[in-house]
Amino acid sequence: MNKKEHWKPGNMLYPIPAVMVSCGSVEKSNIITIAWAGTICSNPAMVSISIKKERYSYNIIKENKEFVINLVTKDLVRQTDFCGVRSGKDIDKFKEMKLTPIKGQKVNAPIIDQSPLNIECIVKEIIPLGSHDMFLAEVVNVTVDKRYMDDKGKFHLNKSDLIAYSHGEYFRLGEKLGKFGYSVKKKINRR
Amino acid sequence: MNKKEHWKPGNMLYPIPAVMVSCGSVEKSNIITIAWAGTICSNPAMVSISIKKERYSYNIIKENKEFVINLVTKDLVRQTDFCGVRSGKDIDKFKEMKLTPIKGQKVNAPIIDQSPLNIECIVKEIIPLGSHDMFLAEVVNVTVDKRYMDDKGKFHLNKSDLIAYSHGEYFRLGEKLGKFGYSVKKKINRR
Repeated sequence: MNKKEHWKPGNMLYPIPAVMVSCGSVEKSNIITIAWAGTICSNPAMVSISIKKERYSYNIIKENKEFVINLVTKDLVRQTDFCGVRSGKDIDKFKEMKLTPIKGQKVNAPIIDQSPLNIECIVKEIIPLGSHDMFLAEVVNVTVDKRYMDDKGKFHLNKSDLIAYSHGEYFRLGEKLGKFGYSVKKKINRR
Repeated sequence: MNKKEHWKPGNMLYPIPAVMVSCGSVEKSNIITIAWAGTICSNPAMVSISIKKERYSYNIIKENKEFVINLVTKDLVRQTDFCGVRSGKDIDKFKEMKLTPIKGQKVNAPIIDQSPLNIECIVKEIIPLGSHDMFLAEVVNVTVDKRYMDDKGKFHLNKSDLIAYSHGEYFRLGEKLGKFGYSVKKKINRR
């Protein structure tokens, strides 16, 4: 009996981030929610986001060559969903979603104040792939909310209640299963 | 009082998938765990993975021009961590981790039988970025475990207990917060 079934090719890499990408300027801004996003290089720190040509943010980011990735928490999930299905052609998403735009440190695009972590990016290359164009970008600044910083200056991102997107649904992160490298750590002899 | 702090550029896009990427052949295979992975195009379905040149799998994938992304569940987290920190130069990771290689449907690379979903990929382009090279690949087949398929042929990926990786830690997915589009759905009048 075959317990496997073969499907046609499709997008099934999950869970993935669902991040709010802000662009434009504080005066004329937009937000687009992106799930086709990822880290592509450690040094220099680089990310990619993929956007359909029809999307309102596509031309803004193509012209300005910059954007901000804003991480998303449980308290921002409704805004995240809304910014993924509605177009900035018709509405001011910052105003509609009661989000606060603050000018980025290294880019003109606004960061979303309510997000625990903002990643300012400069576009290096745009690669057309089909339905989507991929924007390769270098990270030029990271802004963090001091709320998640401890006395020793250590940042606890995983206390901010980040969400993940998986196969059409948004989830909180749940039970912690281990730290990177735990499988090969030697046990301390406590005798 | 400024509640924000500016950091130097870094990789802070989280949560992200931590997937086991298998390569080579059933006879001579390897597994490398990748967190720098993402979907980059819907049509054609495309993904990217970024790998350091020093990694054992780098040359295998560069030469064979194919790999398999195997999604990871709670029961596979130890194997996932191990395959991210140990090198296939020294060990047979399938054997060591008691994982079963099965030849892919459209590629020679093995899929990991224990994974709920396997994404077979053909490399289209390799882009050097710095510490990592990015492999752009087209999805050519998806294999799913029938265990998560219901009577009507609907696949319930989110019942497979997928894990996410965030800022150095592995997590189960937790509370479900909503479906894509829920923020603009009209409420049904139940009066």
